[in-house]
Amino acid sequence: MNTHTVKAFDQDIGELRALIAQMGGLAEQAIRDAVQALTRHDLEAAAQIVVGDKAIDAIEMKVEQLAVQIIALRAPMADDLREVVAAIKIGGVIERIGDYAKNIAKRVPLVENHGDLAPLSILPAMANLAISMVHDVLDAFAARDAEAALDVCQRDRQVDDFYNSLFRVLVTHMMENPATIGQMAHLLFIAKNLERVGDHATNVAEMVYFAATGQHMVERDRGAPQTGEI
Amino acid sequence: MNTHTVKAFDQDIGELRALIAQMGGLAEQAIRDAVQALTRHDLEAAAQIVVGDKAIDAIEMKVEQLAVQIIALRAPMADDLREVVAAIKIGGVIERIGDYAKNIAKRVPLVENHGDLAPLSILPAMANLAISMVHDVLDAFAARDAEAALDVCQRDRQVDDFYNSLFRVLVTHMMENPATIGQMAHLLFIAKNLERVGDHATNVAEMVYFAATGQHMVERDRGAPQTGEI
Repeated sequence: MNTHTVKAFDQDIGELRALIAQMGGLAEQAIRDAVQALTRHDLEAAAQIVVGDKAIDAIEMKVEQLAVQIIALRAPMADDLREVVAAIKIGGVIERIGDYAKNIAKRVPLVENHGDLAPLSILPAMANLAISMVHDVLDAFAARDAEAALDVCQRDRQVDDFYNSLFRVLVTHMMENPATIGQMAHLLFIAKNLERVGDHATNVAEMVYFAATGQHMVERDRGAPQTGEI
Repeated sequence: MNTHTVKAFDQDIGELRALIAQMGGLAEQAIRDAVQALTRHDLEAAAQIVVGDKAIDAIEMKVEQLAVQIIALRAPMADDLREVVAAIKIGGVIERIGDYAKNIAKRVPLVENHGDLAPLSILPAMANLAISMVHDVLDAFAARDAEAALDVCQRDRQVDDFYNSLFRVLVTHMMENPATIGQMAHLLFIAKNLERVGDHATNVAEMVYFAATGQHMVERDRGAPQTGEI
């Protein structure tokens, strides 16, 4: 590439990274807001999150259009091409994280808030952990930092542990209060959604690692099969 | 492009389509086998499905490598470029469908088979419906058939209906038999996994539609919010 092309490419890729960062910020906030709407039983905030998801979807389309345009016009090679392809895939993952926020928000009206509900008090901490993984893996993408991506993967186990203890708490609660089973089932899905957010951050970490190094991350020890993988 | 380049591109894209079709076939079979292993409580078959998922993951890597190679070497434009980008995304979706099969298989040891369990008798029909959507949308991709893709989307409602009635059946079963709540929770997740397979087929249909037409599918009526979207 000549200097002109290189500059144009840097500008394009900068725009692509900015879009991914913007999408990521919206998705993190949506997850945080959805769990808060749940613990406060705030139906209005929940409805806002459902509407706000369209903004995330719109940025994903922009990411894809820009990435395809970059590939077509700038013909990037090697590292640069891997980064553009990673951006397409990461955009898709963030869009799904936005969907999880929307799905949690849609369950808010279906879960009555009993102040003494133990599972509800665990969910915000689990959400914060999952959100921090998303945040850090997108920073790793922006910095092409393979080590930081590896670090995010290692934290997924903690989210899985949260999920497993919540699963037990919820099933116990169901057995002791059969009348609340329908509601507890919704909390179970919400916990599962948050666990999936952690999984997706891990998937993105693998993409960032590959984009940065050209190597696939070695098969990680993902813990006992009854944890996050089910 | 000159004739030589066009031929090389056609050959590459044919190879890409063949990989997607191969992946899709494996994923369909894995879902079918996983639900059969569940209804028969066949632990050995379940273990095989978990191992077999690696083959699907390996093909996804090949899809991505070939797609990136095509973009870099052949510089496809417009329709062709959209198809190559769609292949990357569709590969990612099929990989996730394979993960659902693996996840169902991992739950097989956790669900004891009582011959008279109503939910277990509903799952195979639901799985068949979801699998048929995956099958047909991959045919639509191979044929660049936007109409067939639209048709697949319209069938997602039926999978959602299955899921909703299963949800009610399972919650009722839990209330009447609190001792089985842990097992029923696993069946609930399995039903949800199958419902997500239908959703993913719908997502692929949207990608196929966009690849074939260059237009995004108009926002579809996705039913009441308590259905498939949660």
